[in-house]
Amino acid sequence: MTALNEGWFTEIFQDEGTAFSLKVKGKLHEEQTPFQKIAIWETETFGNLMTIDGCVMLTTRDNFLYHEMMAHPALFTHKDPRKVVIIGGGDCGTLREVLKHPGVEEAWQVDIDERVTRLSEQYFPELCESNDDPRANLFFGDGIQWMRDVEPESIDLIIVDSTDPVGPAEGLFAADFYRDCMIALREGGMVVQQSESPLLHADSIIRRAREDMLKAGFDHVMTLPFPQPVYPTGWWSCTMAGKNKPLQYFREEDADERPFVTRYYNKAIHHAALAQPQFMVDLFEG
Amino acid sequence: MTALNEGWFTEIFQDEGTAFSLKVKGKLHEEQTPFQKIAIWETETFGNLMTIDGCVMLTTRDNFLYHEMMAHPALFTHKDPRKVVIIGGGDCGTLREVLKHPGVEEAWQVDIDERVTRLSEQYFPELCESNDDPRANLFFGDGIQWMRDVEPESIDLIIVDSTDPVGPAEGLFAADFYRDCMIALREGGMVVQQSESPLLHADSIIRRAREDMLKAGFDHVMTLPFPQPVYPTGWWSCTMAGKNKPLQYFREEDADERPFVTRYYNKAIHHAALAQPQFMVDLFEG
Repeated sequence: MTALNEGWFTEIFQDEGTAFSLKVKGKLHEEQTPFQKIAIWETETFGNLMTIDGCVMLTTRDNFLYHEMMAHPALFTHKDPRKVVIIGGGDCGTLREVLKHPGVEEAWQVDIDERVTRLSEQYFPELCESNDDPRANLFFGDGIQWMRDVEPESIDLIIVDSTDPVGPAEGLFAADFYRDCMIALREGGMVVQQSESPLLHADSIIRRAREDMLKAGFDHVMTLPFPQPVYPTGWWSCTMAGKNKPLQYFREEDADERPFVTRYYNKAIHHAALAQPQFMVDLFEG
Repeated sequence: MTALNEGWFTEIFQDEGTAFSLKVKGKLHEEQTPFQKIAIWETETFGNLMTIDGCVMLTTRDNFLYHEMMAHPALFTHKDPRKVVIIGGGDCGTLREVLKHPGVEEAWQVDIDERVTRLSEQYFPELCESNDDPRANLFFGDGIQWMRDVEPESIDLIIVDSTDPVGPAEGLFAADFYRDCMIALREGGMVVQQSESPLLHADSIIRRAREDMLKAGFDHVMTLPFPQPVYPTGWWSCTMAGKNKPLQYFREEDADERPFVTRYYNKAIHHAALAQPQFMVDLFEG
């Protein structure tokens, strides 16, 4: 058995019985904030790496997959998304994708930890290139409270770009929170939540998120799988929920003629993400 | 930095700067064959694991993704696949998927190392459940030579279920081999080759395989991405090539009404696998 020693960052997923490692040149930064321990590493092949409490958050090389898929399928599914709110997402990568849409008039990023954003500005500047967009609003505070306090029926799309459903993010995977989202959304509004690995979590986190969304009053739910190499199993998902809004159709022509650059997303990939693996069909529709 | 010690199997991808580990209860078997070193491990959460020369080949838990995607998209794309040949695939998982198709009259598995099959029979019996099918022919020998010697225009579909393009499998990723495949295929025939990771190898192994297939005289090529958690990046692909056979259409109705069980593949997933990530569009069609 080969042991990984100095020169590697390793994240161990004890419950899943797997571990993922990236070869690193060194640690660029580490700090304990009031909320969590953030570290930045320079890797050999994946660019910079941000970890929070020892968990991989993102790397320079492959974050485009996650950020594009958290933003574009939902934005092109909504009829006319003008006000978009990101809960979490402190690295600003989702915000950047959201602001690529010319129809978005106002975007909020509500992350509890300002240091995530400040470190992203420093170590992932490309993700922060839209932070000065006049439509961008960066708020640092508790997303659950923010959603409770926001004006009812004032938002078109809520993107829950959170960490795993343990610790501070646990309350973001809950019927109470989705109910507050329901109230905050305009008619035809949507929420999209990162929902972990199809292989590992279809029958646990994903199923519960879907059930909680329906309990909260959403009429439609849909889970979109996509690749994300640095997360457990390399296979990830987001789950969308619609308030009187079917989710299997989207603005195909707009997606096809999008006036911005993407590296993963396109019209065909949007269709592809709507396809459900047979075991998910059996689980959710069987 | 956390080190993984006893109790883990770790595969290090030096060039890619990543490593993947599975928690193991123990090593069930290990042997050096004339061709390679095969080991079988019992993992904590992924069932049994087979490694060859220290590389993960398959686990009980997630091999269905790879085996289904190596078989069904190609089989449902071909108009009427009667004779199918698998080069490599000694674990018999692809053979099992092939023989689920009632129209297949004859299937050959040509693997250089009989011990892979014998160990699969012992440690992955579910993959070998069709080995006694009267249509199944297991031949142990050199796949490159076998393809040179086979009767011209006698095969409908060739599935190259090989290890990485280093060592013994290198010759399976080459224009010479694809040329022999071309000769061996009937009109409308196809070859499908496992073609590594879209993120890591789109501009190297995948691009070269596509070019070599076209050089060998195939008219159409298409790369289908799919998830495969235990391989590098968790994101894998196969590349199909057609001999006077377009690949973007398939027998949709047959796929939808397939008379057998799958866990990943279905009609929608077939469509999804034909979708090309934007960076692959830019690379291959740009």
